[in-house]
Formats: sequence, C-alpha cells, structure tokens
Amino acid sequence: MEELKVFCPATIANVSCGFDVLGLALDSVGDEMIVRKTSEKGVFITKIKGQQLPMETNKNVSGVAGLALLEKSDYQGGFEIEIDKKIKPGSGIGSSAASSAGAVWAMNQLLGKPFSNLELVQFAMQGEKLASDVAHADNVAPAIYGGFTLVRSYQPLDIISIPTPEELFATVIHPQIEIKTSDSRKILKTTITLEKGIRQWGNVGGLVAGLFQNDYSLIGRSLQDYIVEPIRSILIPGFDAIKINTREAGALGCGISGSGPSIFTLSKGEHTALQVADAMKETYKAIGVDFDIHVSKINVEGVKRMTDDR
Amino acid sequence: MEELKVFCPATIANVSCGFDVLGLALDSVGDEMIVRKTSEKGVFITKIKGQQLPMETNKNVSGVAGLALLEKSDYQGGFEIEIDKKIKPGSGIGSSAASSAGAVWAMNQLLGKPFSNLELVQFAMQGEKLASDVAHADNVAPAIYGGFTLVRSYQPLDIISIPTPEELFATVIHPQIEIKTSDSRKILKTTITLEKGIRQWGNVGGLVAGLFQNDYSLIGRSLQDYIVEPIRSILIPGFDAIKINTREAGALGCGISGSGPSIFTLSKGEHTALQVADAMKETYKAIGVDFDIHVSKINVEGVKRMTDDR
Repeated sequence: MEELKVFCPATIANVSCGFDVLGLALDSVGDEMIVRKTSEKGVFITKIKGQQLPMETNKNVSGVAGLALLEKSDYQGGFEIEIDKKIKPGSGIGSSAASSAGAVWAMNQLLGKPFSNLELVQFAMQGEKLASDVAHADNVAPAIYGGFTLVRSYQPLDIISIPTPEELFATVIHPQIEIKTSDSRKILKTTITLEKGIRQWGNVGGLVAGLFQNDYSLIGRSLQDYIVEPIRSILIPGFDAIKINTREAGALGCGISGSGPSIFTLSKGEHTALQVADAMKETYKAIGVDFDIHVSKINVEGVKRMTDDR
Repeated sequence: MEELKVFCPATIANVSCGFDVLGLALDSVGDEMIVRKTSEKGVFITKIKGQQLPMETNKNVSGVAGLALLEKSDYQGGFEIEIDKKIKPGSGIGSSAASSAGAVWAMNQLLGKPFSNLELVQFAMQGEKLASDVAHADNVAPAIYGGFTLVRSYQPLDIISIPTPEELFATVIHPQIEIKTSDSRKILKTTITLEKGIRQWGNVGGLVAGLFQNDYSLIGRSLQDYIVEPIRSILIPGFDAIKINTREAGALGCGISGSGPSIFTLSKGEHTALQVADAMKETYKAIGVDFDIHVSKINVEGVKRMTDDR
C-alpha cells in the first residue's frame, strides 16, 4: 500500500467533570486526509483544502506529528500529505488533533503498523504542542483510539479506553466567535476547593461507571463540572440558556467542548439528539448568534480508512 | 422471623484517589449483632461485648441509626440489639459504620424489607453523624451494598455499586495508636491545586475502569492519592516504609484506611495478600509498633445473615 485516504474525527475534550482527562470522538464531522509514501525522506504537505493553514512541515501540526513518527521509524522514505480541512480551527472540537492524529495513523498503516496506539498518541501530541504550546493528549487520544478515552496520567502516559454505550449521541453547536485556548486556560484558577474537587472526582467515577454499565441516567447525573465550566462558560454567549433548553429537550448533560466556544450535549438516541439540536438552534437564533451544528454518533473506531481510498 | 444474627463488615473508606467517595467492604473482620423484635416501641441496646460503648440508645450509633429507621416505618413495635464488637473503635476500618449498618440492615430484614439499600444508608448515616459529627456515607455504603461503592453525590445521595474483581484481596494493618477522625480532618487543607485535582480524578476514572475490567495492573497504577495521603500519612508511624515494602511484596497499591491509623493494601490473590501482610508485620516489628492485622477477600455481599441465627 502506497497511499491511504483517511477520515480524521473531530473530538470533544474536557467532557464535563473529566476536565483534562476525558475525551470522545465524533463520527459525522472530521477532516479527510490523503497520505502517500515518497522516496524522499521527510514529510511534505502538498495540498490543503478548506482552510488557510501553513504548508511548511515545521509549522503544520500534521507535519510535526509526522516528523515525530519518522524520527522513531526505520523507514527510509517519506510522506506526502493532502488535507481536506472540514473542521474549523478554533472551534473547540479538536481541529489540530484531527490533523495530527490522522497523519500518524495513516503513516503507521502504510508502514505495516510498527507503532502502538499509545505511541501514535505520543507523536500526535507533538502537533498539539505546536498548536497550543501544550502537548496535551485529550483530543488526540480519542481521535486515535476512538470512543471515550481517559488520559489517566502523563508521566508516564497512560490512556484507558472506556466503552461507549450503543445509543449515545453527541450534539455540538459551534457559535461563530473566537476564543483562544491559551486565553481560556489563563482565566482558570490554579487552586480549587477540596470540597469541589471531591464532587468532581465523584462525578468522574460515576461517569466512567455509567459508560461501562450503559446507564444513561447515571451518565446524565455525572455530567457536571463544578470547577471549570462556571468560569469558562462566561466567555460563551448563551451558555446558560443552552444548558437549560437542551436539558428540557431531553439531553443527558451539556458542557463546554474542549476550551470552547463549542458546546456539546450527550443524548440517548438520535431522535433526542436531533431535538436537542433544535433547542440549541432556537436558542442561538433568538439571541442572534451564528453557528454550525453537528449531530453525531460516538465514533468508536477513531481515525479510519475511507472506502474510496486508492 | 423475630430475630436475626448478622455479620457487620469492617470497611475501608477513602480508597486512595477516591477520598470521600470510594469505599469497600471486608470479609474476615466485622462485628456480630443479634437484632430481635420487641413489642415495646423503641430501640434497646441490651448487650455489648468486646468494647466499652454506651448502652443508651441515643448515644449508641446502632441505636441512633435504628431510631432513624423506626421513624420512617409503619411498624408499631421495637427492636433489641446485642452487639459483639470485634472491630476496634478508632481503627479506621469503619467500626461505627459496621454497627449502624448492621442494625438497620437486620431490622429491614425482620420487617420484610420495606426499605431500599439507599434508604438504609441514609438511616445508618445518622449513626455516623453521632460518631464523628459528619453524616458521611463512605463506610456505611460499602457495609450495606457490599463490594466497592462510589458515593457520587450527597445532595441528592447517589450511591453506585462498582464490581469487584474475583481475586482482589485486602491486607489491613492497624497500628495501636489513636488518631481522632476530627483531628485528621482538621489537618487537611481546604484548597488543592487544580493540577493535583486533575491527577486525582484521572486516577479515580482509572480505578473505576480497572475494577470494571478486572485489570489489576490498572487498579494498581490508579491507587495513588496526591492530595490527602501526603498530609495524613505524617500522623501514621512507618507509613512510607510500609508503602515501599508492601509494593515490593507484590501489593497493587497501599493507602490510608479511612482517616487512619490503619493502612490498607490491595493485592491480586490471597497468596500475595499474605506476603504483603508479612512485609507489614516485619516493618512494624522493626520499629517497635504494636499492631493488629487482617487479610481479607473483598466482601461483595455487605452485611449478611450468619448461619447460626436462631
């Protein structure tokens, strides 16, 4: 195999109580990427469609992630990358992670899978470092593993796959405003009360248990973030109204996707997820905020080969 | 049925990263209790063996828990309670919880089970309130539900049963020193860093996942407490040595049981749990600390009827 076309999923990081540790992959929104072996060593971004992004390898997240892989590989050739960028950068659904994860996943396939998923995450994290100065794993992990992932620890990196209940759907709305990840991190306090910490880890335990048990009610009860959401949600127009209206429309829970501005909900069943989408749309129409919206099954495969690859 | 004899398990609360939320029940150490219906309304402590504890209903944790149940019941009679107290008060393995939980569980059986486990926990929490001024649930929940329990939330009370891997054993050593729960709570800081909070809830997620997946390695990696243990362990002689020596003897992890002074470890298999017990004993013998020690399978039933009940 000399060439591969892959779907690179958007992802939701910071799943409510699971700030910095819990993420999930989406199925209906993601980039498309063609990765092709070259005889020349190196990583070459040959085409970017859909967005204005740097073509220089060292300034492109997929380039940097790919170089990290090449550095650990015996392979003497290189790779060309074409990116059809469908996820908007800055939307809070893992745009940079999709490109980084997609590139290294496809390269690994083309090389006969010498690297583990954990190693691929480590390569892709280099792309995240370029994008946001922090080599975080909470978007690239679900993009590569699929489904829900828990980044239990960074030193050493320890990623746990958490099972995904069959009927779980996400609805994500992206208000057309810009929040920089670095800004949304700056406003966080560096200390929290022990009391809130206890409630948070109680909910993380409940959420993980709910996912294992297909207990949608428990998932819903656990989708609460007492620490980050109250601060960051101030930057997102209409957040409180969306939260109330989506709960009324049947959502299990609602939170900030990544560092925002996208807002996600989880629902049981596509029908409810679509009703929740309507509630989100109406809320933003009423306050005059432009938006994109996605309804998606949870993607349990992560990055995947597209059927029309050549 | 007019009378019931029950085994009331000792419990480990604050299971490492699960401070204030995760507990488990033991099988080889617990109180024995006989609960008997009376025509006179009220709860009457008629006998206490093994320890000097108050006989007055209002000053005895099982009395107070029993009264909380009676108050919500249609039953027009009362109960006599005989307690054979085998768990030492102040040991940190849920002595008061065993008495509270045992009393209300037995009463519920004698009345034909009108109350749910969640309601029984709420009654038993009144005993905990008498014992330590705080109506905490993290010992009474595993005593009543058995196995591992997560107290996800107090308002409303939400208790989640977490499955117990078949080969999991606990080893608990009780150094013969006294630490008051109220004192060990006072030394805790009321704030923590966000960074440590994130590591803690990553580990709670990992521990819950490990218990669901029978993944002993993941359980071991997750049994870390960055927040409470570094402070409280100062009060426990030889804690650091026990931690190192039990890990070398094969324990998955080691932490403070409840608010101490008991130290618990979890191990895969009884053989390892016994080796760990030897490591603990040797450590305390070397520094001249007297101790009790228990090796126990995790008790997945909680309070249970004893075969010789009359």
